[in-house]
Amino acid sequence: MNNLKLSGRKPDEARSVIEVGGVRIGEDFLVIAGPCSVETEEQTLRTAEAVRDAGAKMLRGGAFKPRTSPYAFQGLGLKGLKILDKAKKETGLPIVTEVVDTRDVSWVGEYADILQIGARNMQNFSLLREAGKSGKPILLKRGMYSTLEEWLNCAEYILAEGNDKVILCERGIRTFETYTRNTLDLSMVPAVHAESHLPILVDPSHGTGILFMIEPMSLAAVAAGADGLEIEVHVDPKTAMSDKEQQLTPEAFRTLMRRVADLREFMAERAMAEADAAARGDPAAREGVLGSRRDPFADAMD
Amino acid sequence: MNNLKLSGRKPDEARSVIEVGGVRIGEDFLVIAGPCSVETEEQTLRTAEAVRDAGAKMLRGGAFKPRTSPYAFQGLGLKGLKILDKAKKETGLPIVTEVVDTRDVSWVGEYADILQIGARNMQNFSLLREAGKSGKPILLKRGMYSTLEEWLNCAEYILAEGNDKVILCERGIRTFETYTRNTLDLSMVPAVHAESHLPILVDPSHGTGILFMIEPMSLAAVAAGADGLEIEVHVDPKTAMSDKEQQLTPEAFRTLMRRVADLREFMAERAMAEADAAARGDPAAREGVLGSRRDPFADAMD
Amino acid sequence: MNNLKLSGRKPDEARSVIEVGGVRIGEDFLVIAGPCSVETEEQTLRTAEAVRDAGAKMLRGGAFKPRTSPYAFQGLGLKGLKILDKAKKETGLPIVTEVVDTRDVSWVGEYADILQIGARNMQNFSLLREAGKSGKPILLKRGMYSTLEEWLNCAEYILAEGNDKVILCERGIRTFETYTRNTLDLSMVPAVHAESHLPILVDPSHGTGILFMIEPMSLAAVAAGADGLEIEVHVDPKTAMSDKEQQLTPEAFRTLMRRVADLREFMAERAMAEADAAARGDPAAREGVLGSRRDPFADAMD
Amino acid sequence: MNNLKLSGRKPDEARSVIEVGGVRIGEDFLVIAGPCSVETEEQTLRTAEAVRDAGAKMLRGGAFKPRTSPYAFQGLGLKGLKILDKAKKETGLPIVTEVVDTRDVSWVGEYADILQIGARNMQNFSLLREAGKSGKPILLKRGMYSTLEEWLNCAEYILAEGNDKVILCERGIRTFETYTRNTLDLSMVPAVHAESHLPILVDPSHGTGILFMIEPMSLAAVAAGADGLEIEVHVDPKTAMSDKEQQLTPEAFRTLMRRVADLREFMAERAMAEADAAARGDPAAREGVLGSRRDPFADAMD
Repeated sequence: MNNLKLSGRKPDEARSVIEVGGVRIGEDFLVIAGPCSVETEEQTLRTAEAVRDAGAKMLRGGAFKPRTSPYAFQGLGLKGLKILDKAKKETGLPIVTEVVDTRDVSWVGEYADILQIGARNMQNFSLLREAGKSGKPILLKRGMYSTLEEWLNCAEYILAEGNDKVILCERGIRTFETYTRNTLDLSMVPAVHAESHLPILVDPSHGTGILFMIEPMSLAAVAAGADGLEIEVHVDPKTAMSDKEQQLTPEAFRTLMRRVADLREFMAERAMAEADAAARGDPAAREGVLGSRRDPFADAMD
Repeated sequence: MNNLKLSGRKPDEARSVIEVGGVRIGEDFLVIAGPCSVETEEQTLRTAEAVRDAGAKMLRGGAFKPRTSPYAFQGLGLKGLKILDKAKKETGLPIVTEVVDTRDVSWVGEYADILQIGARNMQNFSLLREAGKSGKPILLKRGMYSTLEEWLNCAEYILAEGNDKVILCERGIRTFETYTRNTLDLSMVPAVHAESHLPILVDPSHGTGILFMIEPMSLAAVAAGADGLEIEVHVDPKTAMSDKEQQLTPEAFRTLMRRVADLREFMAERAMAEADAAARGDPAAREGVLGSRRDPFADAMD
Repeated sequence: MNNLKLSGRKPDEARSVIEVGGVRIGEDFLVIAGPCSVETEEQTLRTAEAVRDAGAKMLRGGAFKPRTSPYAFQGLGLKGLKILDKAKKETGLPIVTEVVDTRDVSWVGEYADILQIGARNMQNFSLLREAGKSGKPILLKRGMYSTLEEWLNCAEYILAEGNDKVILCERGIRTFETYTRNTLDLSMVPAVHAESHLPILVDPSHGTGILFMIEPMSLAAVAAGADGLEIEVHVDPKTAMSDKEQQLTPEAFRTLMRRVADLREFMAERAMAEADAAARGDPAAREGVLGSRRDPFADAMD
Repeated sequence: MNNLKLSGRKPDEARSVIEVGGVRIGEDFLVIAGPCSVETEEQTLRTAEAVRDAGAKMLRGGAFKPRTSPYAFQGLGLKGLKILDKAKKETGLPIVTEVVDTRDVSWVGEYADILQIGARNMQNFSLLREAGKSGKPILLKRGMYSTLEEWLNCAEYILAEGNDKVILCERGIRTFETYTRNTLDLSMVPAVHAESHLPILVDPSHGTGILFMIEPMSLAAVAAGADGLEIEVHVDPKTAMSDKEQQLTPEAFRTLMRRVADLREFMAERAMAEADAAARGDPAAREGVLGSRRDPFADAMD
């Protein structure tokens, strides 16, 4: 982990907090939710309302879709961005959307509150530099083949342009296992917290690609100390134009959010109780601490 | 997932419960802890007492160590088993220890309460069959290169010999990432629960190989619904003859256990509260349930 | 392998031949050689002369270098292209150089005879489309994490823009093996020949990252039926600003080229002898043919 | 590559030559061929005759088959060994067959000229030690997840028991690519030659799992300097009880063998011509030599 001048964590350095639309990312727990692709105005608005009502703090939705085949649905482009803009006005949710071309960074940035750089473009260094120059908050997904060191170096490309608003997102890596779409590597949560001051979200939708795994992996991410989640939700997943298999219904998302919130609350209470015990000099509170900066219970304090 | 006649899960089938030394594995949460290798009587006894006092229900310890190099410490063999036996008598903890040779299954089985088959021997089919014939409870670790389907087929080899006491253990797979020793694949917890009736433990010690990751990954495993944990603990890790880098001190293990227990308790309470709400006909309790058999909150009820 | 409308091979379809600077790629065996990075005029000119004298048909050299760290040497940019242009004028060798940004495709295309798209940008779909629109011959390297199906779909992106001049290049994939820099997957040579009509080169420099492996892997690629090689050569590898460990000296490259040429000649002679025998009705020539389109001996006929 | 006391190559040390049934392995090029499984006497005898007539020097055939599922055909056991013995008497071909259990090493060794240890048992250290004690020549396949360093350490286990007759065999590793059954890593040929004095064969049948790839990958292995090949051949592949998709017909094998022999002859002639030129003081013969011990042309001299 050499040469991470800006993304690396110095001893006793505090974690970064990145404020977007009133959410203090890295401190407040952030859930970004929404459809894989923006398909129609109605689909987007109804999904946006549903995820807001369930407690999501931002809306995701793809207007430019990187697809394996050139003949697959490529997204609505500008039309999709305008739909997202309308959804933002109606729900108040800030928008997270992907940018895939250096030429698009500035104008897509006018619609997006956070620009997402996807797994396939993680080492598109021109795009990283342009994202850095834009000054916009950037959600940088881990490449499906990238090591922690490479990933943090990609954050470094953005930071080196003077933009310190970088949020990382683990979304699964490619392995030999074919049961799941990718192998969600939750060990990156404590690893990023140890090596960097940047916040890290987890995307269990792409990370597993399997509906029934999204909730257990979301709860696991929370318990591991993640700073948030990005989850695909669609008002009517059966009709989705992409990622049909992994988008939650609004109902399933609501249940998931209730459980995530409960787990977060429990962890925050426990962390405060432990801090109190330590302040009172309770010897049990002191022993065996693994290092507070890497401690998921302490991390849970909002 | 064809042909899993005995290990596969039939619709609405209950999960298996395997009783060993008073622990109902699959129902009670099980923590197995102890040193990587049995080195001396004192090291083993002191570690055994420490893990028992912290709440572990079984003692692990290797007497036969599969090592990459023939010149590395290979374990104490019979002498190690005798030390484990003494530790069992003094602490009351059942013993989990690895067997690596078909010829050893029957006599090692006289010392072990659970026979462990390690990752490197997962597809040693002769050993699986012998383990099946022994009738002893078997802890079957996932091979570092094995798919879920191959792993369950290995369980099938044991079950096909008439031995239904198989416990699975995820311990990390081999990927391109070199920051961690292995990539711990927690998605196997819901995957095994969906495809099989067998219980599944998680080993975060081998799964990460990094001390500060063991606690967050343990908590994540609990939140994902794992049936237990296997963790390496050593009274004096600095002096350990193997896996020096990943064995917890007794103090760190005690803190970890307190947090694991708290998280388990919280999940069990929440599951009961949800069950009550559903019984009362609360509509919120019904919506969006992802399927009770795959539901980590419900799984948490002890 | 669905939906490869343009890159897929139809039964009995001939392989594509792409003519660049007098070389009929897919029919003539093509060796592209030159430095990893263009560093100075002298380094480039002297390397260009050396590789031309040894029999290379095109010059490679990077002016835009995708590097893991933003603080590593990033290439000379336009200055580098001008040096390549001078080398082309002095040696007559067509130029192969990488493009990394959609905005650069058209002006870099004025210097390059073949535009290279590197492994990290293989799924930069915007760049692929722009490369397609340019009409220039494109050398498309396999992503280090990409399946054959994904790779051919990336070729499809270029072809779908009306540009049929796509040349593939296997350069090693990322696996768990750390002895080599990448794992060179020579099975892609017959695989591409079976599934596509496009030519395929092999890059043993990146594919192994180890000097002494470049010759045996080059000869293996020839024997497997590859349509050419891309090899890094530097007049003084010790002083190279990138990929120091894997650039051949001119002397080593000359020896390699002599052996490659001899092997090619042998294979072409054998293929003609087999064709003659078949024409004469020799039964031995007919039996056991594995399918002529996939037959490396037949492929060797220039 | 530490601690390879016996398997590692010392500077200027000659390569090992292991004599089995008149073949000097490491010096003579060795082709082992035969069915995946011994199924019937007629199938085995007819295949044995066919491979002998085509030029194979040894017969392979599995009597104990490690299979993913316990319900798949497991081999004929002792009956299979007796059929192999009969085939040996009728054809004169030495027998190569797999052993999977420590208890079987001594009696299977009475039928086998070379005992094969398969990929799944590569790190079955008890079996390696027993194979070492047997004194029989051992064909050690690379595990599908094993690094070069781990593989050579497994050879070290055998050598450390006083048995110096170890032959390595690359058979493909597990990667994310699903087009091929495994990814054949031919770079292991020069790697093993650089790091060890042991001979290395290549198995393109398991290494690709695809019929039309076996010939090009065989020729590539020869060009890379392999010491031999292990190839699956079946008199009637359509009816095979295992590995139906990757067994060559006798006709295809005959064609393959003719081409392999021609390529070997060409390489040997070239190596002699180069040696002569060097002896005459031809400067061209001296320049750019990559190191004779790693030189596939020199390796080709029988």
